[in-house]
Amino acid sequence: MNQERCAIGVIGMAVMGQNLALNIARKGFSTAVFNRTTAVTEKFHQERVQGEPVFPAKTMEEFVALLEPPRKVLLMVKAGEAVDAFIGKLILLLQKGDLLIDAGNSHFTDTDRRIAEAEKQGFLFLGTGVSGGEAGALHGPSIMPGGHERGYLLAGPILEQAAAQVDGGACCAYLGPRSAGHFVKMVHNGIEYAFMQALAEGYDLLHKVGGISTSRCADIFGEWNTRENLASYLTEITAAVLSHHDEDTGKPLVELILDQAEQKGTGKWTTQTALDLGVPTPLINQAVMARSLSSYSGKRKSLSSLYPTPLPVSNDSPDKDELIKDLEQALFLAQVCAFSEGFQLLESASGEFGYGLDLSTVARIWKGGCIIRSALLPHIEHAYSKLHPPLLLADPVLVPRIREALPPLRKVVALAAHHGVPVPCLGAALFSLDSWGAGILPTNLIQAQRDYFGAHTFRRRDKEGVFHEQWEKGDAQ
Amino acid sequence: MNQERCAIGVIGMAVMGQNLALNIARKGFSTAVFNRTTAVTEKFHQERVQGEPVFPAKTMEEFVALLEPPRKVLLMVKAGEAVDAFIGKLILLLQKGDLLIDAGNSHFTDTDRRIAEAEKQGFLFLGTGVSGGEAGALHGPSIMPGGHERGYLLAGPILEQAAAQVDGGACCAYLGPRSAGHFVKMVHNGIEYAFMQALAEGYDLLHKVGGISTSRCADIFGEWNTRENLASYLTEITAAVLSHHDEDTGKPLVELILDQAEQKGTGKWTTQTALDLGVPTPLINQAVMARSLSSYSGKRKSLSSLYPTPLPVSNDSPDKDELIKDLEQALFLAQVCAFSEGFQLLESASGEFGYGLDLSTVARIWKGGCIIRSALLPHIEHAYSKLHPPLLLADPVLVPRIREALPPLRKVVALAAHHGVPVPCLGAALFSLDSWGAGILPTNLIQAQRDYFGAHTFRRRDKEGVFHEQWEKGDAQ
Repeated sequence: MNQERCAIGVIGMAVMGQNLALNIARKGFSTAVFNRTTAVTEKFHQERVQGEPVFPAKTMEEFVALLEPPRKVLLMVKAGEAVDAFIGKLILLLQKGDLLIDAGNSHFTDTDRRIAEAEKQGFLFLGTGVSGGEAGALHGPSIMPGGHERGYLLAGPILEQAAAQVDGGACCAYLGPRSAGHFVKMVHNGIEYAFMQALAEGYDLLHKVGGISTSRCADIFGEWNTRENLASYLTEITAAVLSHHDEDTGKPLVELILDQAEQKGTGKWTTQTALDLGVPTPLINQAVMARSLSSYSGKRKSLSSLYPTPLPVSNDSPDKDELIKDLEQALFLAQVCAFSEGFQLLESASGEFGYGLDLSTVARIWKGGCIIRSALLPHIEHAYSKLHPPLLLADPVLVPRIREALPPLRKVVALAAHHGVPVPCLGAALFSLDSWGAGILPTNLIQAQRDYFGAHTFRRRDKEGVFHEQWEKGDAQ
Repeated sequence: MNQERCAIGVIGMAVMGQNLALNIARKGFSTAVFNRTTAVTEKFHQERVQGEPVFPAKTMEEFVALLEPPRKVLLMVKAGEAVDAFIGKLILLLQKGDLLIDAGNSHFTDTDRRIAEAEKQGFLFLGTGVSGGEAGALHGPSIMPGGHERGYLLAGPILEQAAAQVDGGACCAYLGPRSAGHFVKMVHNGIEYAFMQALAEGYDLLHKVGGISTSRCADIFGEWNTRENLASYLTEITAAVLSHHDEDTGKPLVELILDQAEQKGTGKWTTQTALDLGVPTPLINQAVMARSLSSYSGKRKSLSSLYPTPLPVSNDSPDKDELIKDLEQALFLAQVCAFSEGFQLLESASGEFGYGLDLSTVARIWKGGCIIRSALLPHIEHAYSKLHPPLLLADPVLVPRIREALPPLRKVVALAAHHGVPVPCLGAALFSLDSWGAGILPTNLIQAQRDYFGAHTFRRRDKEGVFHEQWEKGDAQ
């Protein structure tokens, strides 16, 4: 090791950091590793490193000394203060021209701040989304880097080899300046929230309205995962989860899991940012809010006895096979709408923040490794290479599929409404498609109300200009 | 005027400022007024002041000299930089112990900052919501002050006289420290967004599904405004708007108004804050997003030809009278849910930010003057004086009314789904009621998915503790 120094260093030896370091080392890149608690690094090195070129350091000085200049340091630590703390220590040890890579789920505004600071101090910085969970980190995640393009020239060859490999190459590409990478990862997670919630609603309907057992539901999701409409990692793991039985009781484990969902914030950030940019993302938002609502166990308990689910009406039970077929189409549309929301948000942010995103490239690097990889993505990649304006719902290949799936989605939403099964995401998919397609929305009434009470003015269909009407001021209180 | 100085001064002579100044002066309080552009002040004084004790000032020095110490200055200027700019100038002219009142729609975090700064400099500060539009400002708005309680001792007697007067007194009360007042106003506006969107959806259904003319819709809203379930200012003005005809064409004016809604940000802030506090506010959010979506005229135009509204099926047309009856109940529930969301957000914020809000008082001062005044509010005022925990949907008087209205809401949402009329807010009302009442939600599946791909762990129904399952790691990519 005195002769040859490491190609890259990884800080943070929680499971994601361990797996990413092993993944990189297995591609032949010598990798220095460091963790604040040395015992964690040692345990990792003893138990998981088997001949891979992984070099543990006990101190940050030792860690930095292991690195070949220009040094490349990948941080895989908890987003927030820990990132700033490590950066603060590192810049005292690194040299100008060295590269910092933040691979956690940092808020994009934090990344913008850090990049600006790094620049002042003469360092290169990449803010990089990494998706794929533990398994992805080890076997090939989707990697979404943004920031200094010169930094990508240094680290790109390593990241691209560590990334998932699919038709079209590595699931890693330089996305744009500043926080482009973390922004794309945030939106990825927002889409993930929406599709997960939609799948959960599908399971709920099969189970509660169709009276279908969890094991049989597992088969249905398994079948769906073989179809063009729904084949995706999330459909696949839904089947796997539903088929998994608790060892002690023999029951489907999912039935024993508490229905209070947690969240780490990226879905919330996506919605908040969409609100700032004025981009409608109703599915993503409903998914975030469904998780929030589920966490109020006390209130839910009080209310569940007051508002019991309506009793099924005997002549009202749907045909199971029809329900399954309709749901497949409904979930397809939920997925389409979730992607459409996400890409519309990316398009808007790209303009607003000057990311210059290539939406086709984003779709390409999501095709493998990440949580939202799906049979839809190769199609979306192709669509965005052609669509001007980039309006996914107007893509000529998707339009007939969406039109075909709309009547089944209508049936599913109506069925859920009658049976008291909440479908906030499937409903949002239907209402957003119907809003986009409506031609005329009743927001003319809202404009009139606003002008009535606040003199906010309105525009007209039949003439240019801005108008204020004297409605009937005398009567208003 | 050398002998007697003014009780209060108002800065900002746009319509709201003019009306509020006139309102205060008509209550017998001498009122100094100032506007950056003097011509506006002069025009106001010449054209609208008729014997009221209103004293115009040409400079800020003159304005401040007109005020009786401790001086009370009410700012009615555009939220944002203008507020800071005026405060910056005023503190050079005022004396310690004087009171600044920001009566615009400032973001509550700005108010917190300004109050902290004012405190440092020895000034008193109130951040005050004012609702009621132009007419309310003149005849009696709902006023929602928060900040320094000693400031309220100075200005409260004036504000209370200027406020709307209802059964229970003035629609003005000191709400709590720091940004309590602006927070309450923000939530007021969020509720306003939700109920306005729900009313628009009701109109859309009557019009498009019921085939009912706009004039007849006006009658229906007028009738609803006489009923306990829907009587409210917004129902009232909806009837007024729908019955209003364009002078030139003789058509209902609303039909000529462009259906692209605008927004000033308070609905967005409400949703973003709800997301931060983890409070589900799906109706408010859907209302904000419906406005955003409506503004994309180009995309909407492209998509409306691709996804036409489904043709009505002849045997599918609802009975009109039944539709009207069902919609009344559906809109009642939308209103209940919007209030429930708003008050839950206030409850959460009160704990988080230490406002110590009395929810019953908030309901009381919303009973008159403001945009969301409604026949429901006296009931909500009463409910919150008794409810522990403060769970509006569990109020014993409301429960039977909600239960009665749920089946009609189910019918309305299903009907809208079949006919392609988007009902994001009515849908959110149904799905949120069904979520609160569900007993078991499918979020157990989401927790399982999260543990599968991210080892995020889960809790179980049947045992204490936090668990992580080895699902089938070998298979995952």
